[in-house]
Amino acid sequence: MSTLVTGIAELVTNDPSLGDGQLGLVSEAAVVVDGGTVAWVGPAARAPEADERVDVGGRAVIPGFVDSHAHLVFAGDRSAEFEARMSGARYDGGGIGSTVAATREASDDALRARLRSLVAEMRGQGTTTVEVKSGYGLTVDDEARCLRLAAEVTPETTFLGAHVVPAEYAGRRDEYVDLVTGPMLAACAPYARWIDVFCEAASAHAFDGAAARAVLTAGRDAGLGLRVHANQLSAGPGVRLAVELGAASADHCTHLTDDDVDALAGGTTVATLLPGVEFSTRSPYPDARRLLSAGVTVALATDCNPGSCFTSSMAFCVALAVREMHMTAAEALWAATAGGAAALRRTDVGRLCPGARADLAVLEAPSFTHLAYRPGVPLVRALNVGYSGSGHPSR
Amino acid sequence: MSTLVTGIAELVTNDPSLGDGQLGLVSEAAVVVDGGTVAWVGPAARAPEADERVDVGGRAVIPGFVDSHAHLVFAGDRSAEFEARMSGARYDGGGIGSTVAATREASDDALRARLRSLVAEMRGQGTTTVEVKSGYGLTVDDEARCLRLAAEVTPETTFLGAHVVPAEYAGRRDEYVDLVTGPMLAACAPYARWIDVFCEAASAHAFDGAAARAVLTAGRDAGLGLRVHANQLSAGPGVRLAVELGAASADHCTHLTDDDVDALAGGTTVATLLPGVEFSTRSPYPDARRLLSAGVTVALATDCNPGSCFTSSMAFCVALAVREMHMTAAEALWAATAGGAAALRRTDVGRLCPGARADLAVLEAPSFTHLAYRPGVPLVRALNVGYSGSGHPSR
Repeated sequence: MSTLVTGIAELVTNDPSLGDGQLGLVSEAAVVVDGGTVAWVGPAARAPEADERVDVGGRAVIPGFVDSHAHLVFAGDRSAEFEARMSGARYDGGGIGSTVAATREASDDALRARLRSLVAEMRGQGTTTVEVKSGYGLTVDDEARCLRLAAEVTPETTFLGAHVVPAEYAGRRDEYVDLVTGPMLAACAPYARWIDVFCEAASAHAFDGAAARAVLTAGRDAGLGLRVHANQLSAGPGVRLAVELGAASADHCTHLTDDDVDALAGGTTVATLLPGVEFSTRSPYPDARRLLSAGVTVALATDCNPGSCFTSSMAFCVALAVREMHMTAAEALWAATAGGAAALRRTDVGRLCPGARADLAVLEAPSFTHLAYRPGVPLVRALNVGYSGSGHPSR
Repeated sequence: MSTLVTGIAELVTNDPSLGDGQLGLVSEAAVVVDGGTVAWVGPAARAPEADERVDVGGRAVIPGFVDSHAHLVFAGDRSAEFEARMSGARYDGGGIGSTVAATREASDDALRARLRSLVAEMRGQGTTTVEVKSGYGLTVDDEARCLRLAAEVTPETTFLGAHVVPAEYAGRRDEYVDLVTGPMLAACAPYARWIDVFCEAASAHAFDGAAARAVLTAGRDAGLGLRVHANQLSAGPGVRLAVELGAASADHCTHLTDDDVDALAGGTTVATLLPGVEFSTRSPYPDARRLLSAGVTVALATDCNPGSCFTSSMAFCVALAVREMHMTAAEALWAATAGGAAALRRTDVGRLCPGARADLAVLEAPSFTHLAYRPGVPLVRALNVGYSGSGHPSR
């Protein structure tokens, strides 16, 4: 059953061979979807026939957002910590412990309900691919449980046992690293595609370069791809370690030296910027222009989590990227779609070209520039095409 | 037909006699609505009977937002101007001319469709009272036409013939002021509750203190209430003029002298801050804490308009107020509800106490603090209670 989507005032394909510029823009476009996959893309005037037709009424269509960094398996509420921070308290990751305590207490059903609610909230805002990390269990059983739940909603699951050193291991970081790289990794690897570590010398709760290297190499040996929470609170070894080990992504990249930028430019690691964190911790933003000028591949993601940034809105991150990091609207949208796909080493999402997944998002606007021009407005929603015969936007 | 609304985890009444603090917070609350009006508010355990019951499922309920500053009658698109500004072009109000040209060209039906779409978009985000200005017609007929359309959707209509000096009056500002205060005012007053003027010495397009005084006093003589676009681009006479003339609100207040703050503190004029403008023009934010410390009544509004700020989201403005202007979440929410009501000299909206309009907004969250804690996420929607027997949230 094929579906012809028409009435697309502006289509972002992210394929320069299909349209204008890096975004591969096509005006007055159409898309044919067949079996959940894009079968044809081009000007509406040249569209082929299809079994059914959906008209989006002169709106812009973009690839669904690819949110490559999110922490969605947790319990508890940290709005009070947020308020304290806005009144002047500093963020150092220490509050993660309160989420760990609540998560360990929570039932599978409670964790699953919260997780599914957040994924649905994201989808209602146009996010069609999301990575989900563990990292609030921090015991063998709780980490495996969180990843098992995450695997119910996405294939992009990340084992983050090395999120922080839990309270019961205070002063015994090496022992905790042995746990993470030993029995915890063994229990979690079956549910995980990726391994990640919070590499941060400036936090008493996180992991230094040697510990991060131990975690990442153990994960690699277990067949997992690599990701790193790198250079969030200070310049440190995270980014260079990520590049050296061939990690798919170095996330945060808020404090970078020239050597860090050179390493990223010379490697295959995507720099994933999370400007919602700087918004919600009132911190200086990463220097996106420096990275783009150096030729680094940049992604945008939410870092949706109950502590440092509880937004689930990729559109908000696009608006912040333009306002605060001086990215163009086109650069920001690319980073939030194709960039996120690159950070997950995926070629089937983040673009709308023949063979890609038919993850279309429709905007309540004639152009993608409205994502930055209209900050905070819920303009985007995922479009279900060809599912149960309905082309109606889901919300 | 009365309706009992239950399942309210946290109710913001904005009436300190009904609950805790300035917000008059009630936990585990209930509200009885009768004939579109709040009939009873209090703890759910003491709620009276009613004809029907609506359960909001453990969510927070707040008074619908009161957006006291918006420009919603226009045609055209200025996303390209937005992009140029993000690339370094300065905002001085000059781009307003392009919207004026498009608005004059547009049919009533086209203007009405855009206006109603924006009002619906606002309502979908929890805004239940909105002020709408003219100011993109700038001829006698076009200003009257815009206000006639605005009056179809809100009683809070504002005549802003003195938005900019239109191109055909370039170099003849005094003649244009004569038109505004003469035939244009006569044609517009029947459709307007308020008169407003863009008082800004720093813009070649706007009105200096003498011109603003002429506009405001003419409006007052015609029976209109007064509002002023004041001190947006530079410190100038706008704020002091607003206070001197007893205006309901001085809007923007981005550049204030000590004398301006003293005047506001000693008068009855609300300082309406529009942080979406500073976000979308990449400008320094107003100093809200200075105003609050001086005892000034502060409101928040969107300034939704196609040029300097095209957000329609009061929740986004609340998040900006907390992040960028160091208001607490409680101060920001009060300013976006009761503050907006004060800026419109309304006592029937912006609060949920017996006798107030039953403009309830329900949050996809347990507490109002999530408006700041979860920036960019569409958490708020207006709740239709007792309309056509349905309590289902509208979107």
